[in-house]
Amino acid sequence: RERLQENSKGCGEFCVKNINQAEFGRREIEIAEQEMPGLMALRKRAESEKPLSGAKITGCTHITAQAAVLIETLAALGATVRWCACNIYSTQNEVAAALAEAGFAIFAWKGESEEDFWWCIEQCICSNGFEANMILDDGGDATHLMFKKFPSIFKQIKGIVEESVTGVHRLYQLSKTGKLTIPAMNVNDSVTKTKFDTLYSCRESILDALKRTTDVMFAGKHVVVCGYGEVGKGCSAALKGLGAIVHVTEIDPICALQACMEGFRVVRLEEVIKYMDVIITCTGNKNVVTRQHLDRVKNGCIVCNMGHSNTEIDVASLRTPELTWERVRSQVDHIIWPDGKRIMLLAEGRLVNLSCSSVPSFVVSVTSTTQALALIELFNAPGGRYKQDVYLLPKKMDEYVASLHLPAFDAHLTELADSQARYLGLNKAGPFKPNYYR
Amino acid sequence: RERLQENSKGCGEFCVKNINQAEFGRREIEIAEQEMPGLMALRKRAESEKPLSGAKITGCTHITAQAAVLIETLAALGATVRWCACNIYSTQNEVAAALAEAGFAIFAWKGESEEDFWWCIEQCICSNGFEANMILDDGGDATHLMFKKFPSIFKQIKGIVEESVTGVHRLYQLSKTGKLTIPAMNVNDSVTKTKFDTLYSCRESILDALKRTTDVMFAGKHVVVCGYGEVGKGCSAALKGLGAIVHVTEIDPICALQACMEGFRVVRLEEVIKYMDVIITCTGNKNVVTRQHLDRVKNGCIVCNMGHSNTEIDVASLRTPELTWERVRSQVDHIIWPDGKRIMLLAEGRLVNLSCSSVPSFVVSVTSTTQALALIELFNAPGGRYKQDVYLLPKKMDEYVASLHLPAFDAHLTELADSQARYLGLNKAGPFKPNYYR
Amino acid sequence: RERLQENSKGCGEFCVKNINQAEFGRREIEIAEQEMPGLMALRKRAESEKPLSGAKITGCTHITAQAAVLIETLAALGATVRWCACNIYSTQNEVAAALAEAGFAIFAWKGESEEDFWWCIEQCICSNGFEANMILDDGGDATHLMFKKFPSIFKQIKGIVEESVTGVHRLYQLSKTGKLTIPAMNVNDSVTKTKFDTLYSCRESILDALKRTTDVMFAGKHVVVCGYGEVGKGCSAALKGLGAIVHVTEIDPICALQACMEGFRVVRLEEVIKYMDVIITCTGNKNVVTRQHLDRVKNGCIVCNMGHSNTEIDVASLRTPELTWERVRSQVDHIIWPDGKRIMLLAEGRLVNLSCSSVPSFVVSVTSTTQALALIELFNAPGGRYKQDVYLLPKKMDEYVASLHLPAFDAHLTELADSQARYLGLNKAGPFKPNYYR
Amino acid sequence: RERLQENSKGCGEFCVKNINQAEFGRREIEIAEQEMPGLMALRKRAESEKPLSGAKITGCTHITAQAAVLIETLAALGATVRWCACNIYSTQNEVAAALAEAGFAIFAWKGESEEDFWWCIEQCICSNGFEANMILDDGGDATHLMFKKFPSIFKQIKGIVEESVTGVHRLYQLSKTGKLTIPAMNVNDSVTKTKFDTLYSCRESILDALKRTTDVMFAGKHVVVCGYGEVGKGCSAALKGLGAIVHVTEIDPICALQACMEGFRVVRLEEVIKYMDVIITCTGNKNVVTRQHLDRVKNGCIVCNMGHSNTEIDVASLRTPELTWERVRSQVDHIIWPDGKRIMLLAEGRLVNLSCSSVPSFVVSVTSTTQALALIELFNAPGGRYKQDVYLLPKKMDEYVASLHLPAFDAHLTELADSQARYLGLNKAGPFKPNYYR
Ligand SMILES: NC(=O)c1ccc[n+]([C@@H]2O[C@H](COP(=O)([O-])OP(=O)(O)OC[C@H]3O[C@@H](n4cnc5c(N)ncnc54)[C@H](O)[C@@H]3O)[C@@H](O)[C@H]2O)c1
Ligand SMILES: NC(=O)c1ccc[n+]([C@@H]2O[C@H](COP(=O)([O-])OP(=O)(O)OC[C@H]3O[C@@H](n4cnc5c(N)ncnc54)[C@H](O)[C@@H]3O)[C@@H](O)[C@H]2O)c1
Ligand SMILES: NC(=O)c1ccc[n+]([C@@H]2O[C@H](COP(=O)([O-])OP(=O)(O)OC[C@H]3O[C@@H](n4cnc5c(N)ncnc54)[C@H](O)[C@@H]3O)[C@@H](O)[C@H]2O)c1
Ligand SMILES: NC(=O)c1ccc[n+]([C@@H]2O[C@H](COP(=O)([O-])OP(=O)(O)OC[C@H]3O[C@@H](n4cnc5c(N)ncnc54)[C@H](O)[C@@H]3O)[C@@H](O)[C@H]2O)c1
Repeated sequence: RERLQENSKGCGEFCVKNINQAEFGRREIEIAEQEMPGLMALRKRAESEKPLSGAKITGCTHITAQAAVLIETLAALGATVRWCACNIYSTQNEVAAALAEAGFAIFAWKGESEEDFWWCIEQCICSNGFEANMILDDGGDATHLMFKKFPSIFKQIKGIVEESVTGVHRLYQLSKTGKLTIPAMNVNDSVTKTKFDTLYSCRESILDALKRTTDVMFAGKHVVVCGYGEVGKGCSAALKGLGAIVHVTEIDPICALQACMEGFRVVRLEEVIKYMDVIITCTGNKNVVTRQHLDRVKNGCIVCNMGHSNTEIDVASLRTPELTWERVRSQVDHIIWPDGKRIMLLAEGRLVNLSCSSVPSFVVSVTSTTQALALIELFNAPGGRYKQDVYLLPKKMDEYVASLHLPAFDAHLTELADSQARYLGLNKAGPFKPNYYR
Repeated sequence: RERLQENSKGCGEFCVKNINQAEFGRREIEIAEQEMPGLMALRKRAESEKPLSGAKITGCTHITAQAAVLIETLAALGATVRWCACNIYSTQNEVAAALAEAGFAIFAWKGESEEDFWWCIEQCICSNGFEANMILDDGGDATHLMFKKFPSIFKQIKGIVEESVTGVHRLYQLSKTGKLTIPAMNVNDSVTKTKFDTLYSCRESILDALKRTTDVMFAGKHVVVCGYGEVGKGCSAALKGLGAIVHVTEIDPICALQACMEGFRVVRLEEVIKYMDVIITCTGNKNVVTRQHLDRVKNGCIVCNMGHSNTEIDVASLRTPELTWERVRSQVDHIIWPDGKRIMLLAEGRLVNLSCSSVPSFVVSVTSTTQALALIELFNAPGGRYKQDVYLLPKKMDEYVASLHLPAFDAHLTELADSQARYLGLNKAGPFKPNYYR
Repeated sequence: RERLQENSKGCGEFCVKNINQAEFGRREIEIAEQEMPGLMALRKRAESEKPLSGAKITGCTHITAQAAVLIETLAALGATVRWCACNIYSTQNEVAAALAEAGFAIFAWKGESEEDFWWCIEQCICSNGFEANMILDDGGDATHLMFKKFPSIFKQIKGIVEESVTGVHRLYQLSKTGKLTIPAMNVNDSVTKTKFDTLYSCRESILDALKRTTDVMFAGKHVVVCGYGEVGKGCSAALKGLGAIVHVTEIDPICALQACMEGFRVVRLEEVIKYMDVIITCTGNKNVVTRQHLDRVKNGCIVCNMGHSNTEIDVASLRTPELTWERVRSQVDHIIWPDGKRIMLLAEGRLVNLSCSSVPSFVVSVTSTTQALALIELFNAPGGRYKQDVYLLPKKMDEYVASLHLPAFDAHLTELADSQARYLGLNKAGPFKPNYYR
Repeated sequence: RERLQENSKGCGEFCVKNINQAEFGRREIEIAEQEMPGLMALRKRAESEKPLSGAKITGCTHITAQAAVLIETLAALGATVRWCACNIYSTQNEVAAALAEAGFAIFAWKGESEEDFWWCIEQCICSNGFEANMILDDGGDATHLMFKKFPSIFKQIKGIVEESVTGVHRLYQLSKTGKLTIPAMNVNDSVTKTKFDTLYSCRESILDALKRTTDVMFAGKHVVVCGYGEVGKGCSAALKGLGAIVHVTEIDPICALQACMEGFRVVRLEEVIKYMDVIITCTGNKNVVTRQHLDRVKNGCIVCNMGHSNTEIDVASLRTPELTWERVRSQVDHIIWPDGKRIMLLAEGRLVNLSCSSVPSFVVSVTSTTQALALIELFNAPGGRYKQDVYLLPKKMDEYVASLHLPAFDAHLTELADSQARYLGLNKAGPFKPNYYR
C-alpha cells in the first residue's frame, strides 16, 4: 500500500500487488471475454450510445477476470469507475494489475488486512476529485461505508445495484427502517441469477472443485448434499450424472419433495453420516455439519462447503488439540483423529468452488449483464419511476439479458404471430411472463 | 337424464350413466387412494376435528378416481358436497357410479350435451334444499353460472377455490372490474401445482401416452417440443432420458436459454420440421403447428398436443377434402396426403396425456390436498383476513401439503436448531421461504 | 382346427382363428413395416436377386406383426415358407389371418392345446407336397420334432437358424453329443441381439409394461432389479432416468461392479425387500423371489418378471389357501395376505413386457434382419464353409445388419481413408472389429 | 544418471531425479492406497502366503503413485522387482524417489533421453546379480529388449504380462511368427480393462481435463466425439450428463447404431465441424482430424485427443509458418490463423487426460490387480497349463478381481442356492459367465 507503482503510461492512481503481472492478467481477461457474450454485446451497442456517460460508479466486488470484463464494459458504456474488492482473499492480483495498466483506478490485492479493506473502499467512494453517484456492490460493504461515513454523498447517488444475499438483506433492513433514501436494485433474486447463475455455476464447478483437490472418483460414491435449493440442485444433478449415489438433507418440505421426485433420498444427516464418502453443504445456514457429526464420519471422508460462509461446517470445532491438521495439498487439509481416522477438509470450509475451481464465465456473464443493465436503468430512469425502495429488475430486462446470450448457442427464437400475441394478451416484444414467473 | 336410477340404499339423488358399474369404480378409487397420501392424511386428521362441518360445496371438476378421493375426503372433513363435471367428455362413468352408490349427489356422465352440462352444474348449486356456500371449480363454469344466474347465492358464499389457468384468468378479470365480491384462491399458480403437478405429471405421462397409442421407440428419435415451460420441461426431460434427440421452440428468451443449458437445441419449427419424428406442443398458445408446417413433415411423423386445447395444432386446417383421415387405433388417426404421406395425429389434437394415458395419482394428490386446504382456509378464516380478491395459498400451507407427501418416500426432514432458526430469521415451523420462492 | 376356412382367393392351406380379421392384421403389419428398415432394405434388394429362391423354410416363432414382416420378406427373397407358433399363447390371431389371406401357409392361433401345437409344427415340416430344407426356429421345438420324427428330412436340410437361449442350448447339446448333422447359426449371441435387441427392447418396454398395468408413478420409487445383465441394465437405466431409486442384486461380481459404477446400490434381496415399491426379476434363473421374500414385502408392492419364465418369481408358492387372489385389471392380480397386505403381481409372473406392452419394431428389425441373413448365408454358402456345428454369424454380417438400420436415424458413417485402413490393418469395407468385440 | 544418490538407509541401487522428494511422493502413494482396494486386499492375503516368492520381475510401466502401490504389493507378495519407465515423459519424480527411499531398484525420471530409456530398462533386466524370470510390461519395450539383447534370459522366464494395445499387438506378431517361446497374458483385452478401466477412467477424466485446461462451460456446448468405442462412450456420456450436445463420428456401423440409440447424432466430421465448440478424438486411428478440418473450425474451438497417440489430430500439419502458436497456459496452445481465428489445442495432441488430469486410482486398481493376479497365475501354474501363446486371464480371475473391489462400495453379492446353481449349470463359486461374455 505504501509502495507506489506506476503503469506503463505513468499513471499511479491505483493500488495493486504488482503492476508487472499485467500482461498475464490481460490474457485471462481476453479468455473470459470469449465466454461473456452479453457484456460484449453491450459494448457493441455502446459504440453508438453511451448510456452511462456521466455515471461515476463505486464498484466493490470480487476482482476476477470476469469482473474485469464487466468493469471495462461499464467504462465503454461511458461510466467513470473506481473499483475495490469485496473480500480480502479473492482478488486475482494479475487481473487487478491488468486493469491498473489499462488505466483503471483499482484498489485491491489478495490478502488485504481489515484496515486495508476499508481504506480501499474509501478510495473508491470519494477521492482525488471523484465523487460517486452510483454503487455496484456485492455484500453491502461499500453501501454501508458510504451510508455511515459519507451520508451526504449517499443521499445524492442515483442508485445502488446489489448482487448478494447478504447485501440485499441489509438493503431490505434499511428500507424497513426508513433509512434507504435512494432506489436500489436487487439483482440477487432476479431469475437470471437464481435460475442460471446459481444453478449452473454450481452444477459445473462442484465436480471440478472436488477433482482438482482430491482426484476422487465420483462413480458409486455416497454423497450427502445438505440443502436442496439452487446450489444443492446443481450439485446433486452433476454428481448423479456421473454415477454417485446422492442423499439430500432439507428443512423445507417443498424442496425435500422435489429431491424425492428427482430420485434422491431425503435423510437426516445423522442417519447416514457414517456411510458417506463426500459431504457438501449448500444451505446458507450455520453449523449444519457439527463436530458431533464429524466424530462419526468414516476414514477418508471428504468434507466441503458450497454455501455461504465457513460456518456451515463448524470448522472452529475442529481446531482442538486432540486433532492433528495436516496440509496435504493446496486447499486440502487432512484432519486426523486420535485413532488415526482422517477427514479431508477442503478450502478450510470456505466456498470450495470459488477457492478450488473456476466458475464458468458464461454463467457469470448473465449476472454481470444484469448488473450493467440495472445500472443503466437506475441512471437513466425518469424521476419518479423508482422510489426509495428495493426493486427487482423489470422482467423485460431479464428477457433482454437472456436474449443477448442465445447467439452463443446458435439458438433461434420463435416470434409470436400477431394473432397469437392477441390470443395470449402479450406484447410481441415481451415481457412474456408475469414478473414472479420462475 | 330422464331415466331414474337408485343406488342400493334406495337413494336417487344423482344422475350418472349406470349405477351398476359402481363396484368397478370403487376398485379404481381404492387403487387411487393408495397413491394419494396427502388426502388420506387429511382424513385421518378429520377423525377428531371436522374443519369443513357446515360447508356446502359445489364441486365442478373432471370426475376421475382421483377426484373421487378428494370428494370423499371433503365429506370426511365434514362438508356436504354436490358434484358435476367440468368437461362433457372426461367423466369416468364407473367412478361417478361408485360415488353415487356411496350416497353422493353426483351429476355427470361421459358425453353430456351442452344443455346437460349446464343442467348438471345447476343441480349442484342449489337444488333439493341444498344451497352452496363454497365453490371448488376447474375452469370457472360453476363460478360463472352462479355469478350470472344465482347472484344472491354468489354474494353469500365464503369463497371460491379455482385450479385452472382459464378459471384463474376469469377470476382476475372479475376482480379487475370490481365484480368479485368474495375471496378466491388461485391454486393454479401455487408452487405445488407448477413445480410438482405440472412438471412431474407431464414427465411421467408423455412417454405413456406415446407408447400406448403408437408403440413408438424413443431411442434416437428426433423430437421437437414447442414451448419450454413446465410442461415442455417435463416432456423434454423424459424423452431425453430414453435417448431421443430433443429440439425446443420458444418465444421467451429466458426459457430458451434454460433449454440451451440443458442440452436442447433451440430452433424455429420451420427449420427442423422436415426431419422430425415426433412433434409435441406445450405452449398454451394457438396455431403453433399450422397446416403449412404439416404439409412439410415427413411420412410417419407423430403429432400431438400436451398443452391447452386442440387449437395448438391447427387441426381444423386438416379437415379438408384432399386429405384422408383414417382411424387406425383408438385415439390415433392417420391423415393421408394426396402423395401418400401419412401423419399420425393423436387424440385429434386434444391433450394427449389426458386422453391416452393416466396421470399419476400421487402428483394429483399434491394439488388436491392444496385444494382441500384452500377450502378449509377460506371457510374458517377470521373475517377480514381475506378481502374480495384473488389469493395464493399462504406459503406455510404449501409446505404443509408437501410435508404430508414425504412419508410416502420415507423421507426424513431435518429440524432447524433454535440457533439456526435465529440465524436465518425463521420460525422453526416454517414458512421457510418467501412467498415468491420457486 | 376342424373348421375349414378359405381366404378371399379360395385357398384353404392354413389354419388360423378367423380369416375375417385379416384386414385389421394387415394394418398392424403395415405399421410395423414403417419401423423395420432392415427387412425393408432386404426386400428392395430382392427385386433384382432372389437369394432364397429354392429355399423351403419351416418357420416356428411368435406370430406377431413383426414376425409377419420377416415372413413376407423371406418370401420376397424367393423362399417358400410354412409357419407355426413357438408358443401356445403368443399368436396374434389377426396377424395370422392377414398372412393367411395373403396366401401364406400359417398354422397358429392363440390358445392352442399341446396336441394342436405339435400338429401345427408338423404341417410346416412336411405336408401337402412341401418338404423343408431350412429351419428358422425360436426355442428349438421345430428342430426337435424334425430331428425325432423326420430324421431323413433333417439330414438333408441346409441349415438351422435359432434365436433363443433355450434353442441354442439344445443345439450345443446336440453338437456335443455328435448328433448335429447340419450347420446351425446361433443368432442369440450375436452382438446385434445382446447389445441392441435385449438391452434396448427392455429399456423401452419396462416403463410401458408397468404404466399400462398399474399407472404407477416412477419418480422417487424404490425399485430392486434382480440380475444386472443386458435386461437388468436396460430396466435400471430407464427407471433411473425417470427418478426411481434403483437397487440391484447380482451373483456375478463383474456385473455387480458395473452396477456400482452406474450409481446403483448392490444389495441382497432380503436386506431391502421390505422397503421396495417395485421388484423386477431379470436373471434367467429360478426362485429368485421366493415366498419367504414376499411374506416380507410391504403393502402395495408391485412384483414382475422380465427374465426367462414364470419361475423367476416363485408364483407357485403363492397359490395357497391362506392367500386370496383378486384379478383387478387384465394381467394384474392382487394377492392378499391374511392381515390385509396386498401385492400386485403382473402377468402371473410371466414376461411382463411381452404380456403387457409392445416391444419396439425397430429393435426387433435388427434381430429379424440377422435371421434373414443367416438363412441366406447358410443357404448359399459354398459346400464346406460350414461344418456340422453351431456358428455365430460372421462379424461382417452383423455390421451389414447395423448399416441397414442407420438411415432410419439419418446417421452418416465415416469412411476409412486408404492410409488409415492400412494403419489399422483393416479392410475399408470391414469387418472393423474382431469377432469377440462387444 | 551420473550423479550418485543414496537413500536414507545408505542404499544407492536406483537412479531417480532427486531422492529428497521422497516424502512428498510417499504422501501421494498413501493417498492412492486409499482408493486401490484390490491391491490392498492382495497385500493382506500376502501376510500368510507369499505366492510370488522367488519371482524376479522386470517392471516397465508409467511410474505413478498408482504404479507404486502395485510395485509395493508385488514385493509384499514375495517378489523381487526392478522397475523402469515405459515412457520418457510420464515418470512422477517424487514417486520414483519415494520408491527408491523404500529400497526399490527404480530407474526412471521425467525427461529421459532415448539412450537413458534403454539403459534404464537394461538395469531392470539383468544387473547387479539380478536376473529376471518374469516381465510386467506396458508397450512391449522391456519384452523387446530382452528378446533382442538377452535371448537366453528371455527363454527362461516364466511369463510376460502385458497391458497395452501396442504391446499385445507385438506379442501376437511374435506368436504368429513362432518366436514367442514363453506364455504371455493379454491384460488389455480383459473385461476388467475394457469395460471398467477404459470406460470409467475416460468418463471421469475427460471433464476434468477440459476444465483444468480451459475452464470451459459444458452446458449447451456442441461437441463432436470421433470414435464411439469404450473411450468414446465414456466421453460422450459424461458430456451429455452435463448438458452438452454430443455428435459422434464412426466407421463401424455397429458402434454407430449404438450411438444413435443413446441419442447422439452420427455425422461425418466435415458436415458439422464449423459449428463445433469442442472436438475430441478417441479412435486409435491416425489423421482423424486433419489440417483441412481445422482450417474450417470456428474461432475458439477446443481440440484434444483421448485416443492413442498425437497423430489422431494431425498436429504436424499445424506447425507451418502461417500459423502462430501461443502458449497461454500449461498444456494449452492457441494456434492462430492469419485471419485471427484461434483454436485451443490441448497437450499438443497427446492424450489429454493423462497430461492434464488425473485418472481415478480406483479404476486403475482394477487393472493393476488383474496384472498382479496374472503374474501369480503364470508364476505358479503347473507346467503345461500355458503353452507358448498369448492368453486372456481366466474368467474366474476377472471375477475375483471384481469381487475385491466391491467392499469399497459396500456392495453385497447374492449367493446362488444349490438348486439354482444346478439349474443354471454353474459352479456356486463361479465362473458365472462364458469367457467371451462382455
Ligand atoms: N458456491 C457458489 O458458487 C454459490 C453460488 C450461489 C449461492 N451460494 C450460496 O449458497 C447458499 C445456498 O444458496 P441457494 O441459492 O441454494 O439458496 P436456497 O435458499 O435456494 O437453498 C438453501 C436450502 O438449504 C435449506 N436449509 C437451510 N438450513 C438447512 C439445514 N440445517 N439442513 C438442511 N437444509 C437446510 C433451505 O431450506 C434451502 O432450501 C447461500 O448461502 C448462497 O449464498 C453459493
Ligand atoms: N397435459 C397436461 O397434463 C397439462 C398439465 C398442466 C398444464 N397444461 C397446459 O399446458 C400448457 C403449458 O403449461 P405450462 O405450465 O408449461 O405453461 P408455461 O407458461 O410455463 O409454458 C408455456 C411456454 O410456451 C411458450 N410459448 C408460447 N407460445 C409459443 C410459441 N408460439 N412457440 C413456442 N413457444 C411458445 C411460452 O413462452 C412458455 O414458456 C398450458 O396450456 C397448460 O394449461 C397441460
Ligand atoms: N423380457 C424380455 O424382453 C427379454 C429379452 C431378452 C432376454 N430375456 C430373458 O431375460 C433373462 C436375462 O437375460 P440377459 O440377456 O440379461 O442375461 P444375462 O446373463 O446377461 O443376465 C442375467 C444376470 O442375472 C444374474 N443372476 C443370475 N442368478 C441370479 C440371482 N439369483 N440373483 C441375482 N442375479 C442373478 C447373472 O449373474 C447375470 O448377470 C434371460 O432369461 C433371457 O431369456 C428377456
Ligand atoms: N485416454 C485414455 O485414458 C485411454 C484409455 C484407454 C484407451 N485409450 C486409447 O483410446 C483409443 C480408443 O480405445 P477404445 O478402447 O475406445 O477402442 P475401440 O476400438 O473400442 O474404439 C475406437 C473406435 O473408433 C472408431 N474409429 C476408428 N477410426 C475412425 C475414424 N477415422 N473415424 C471415426 N471413428 C473411427 C472405431 O470404429 C472404434 O469403434 C485407443 O487408441 C486406446 O489406446 C485411451
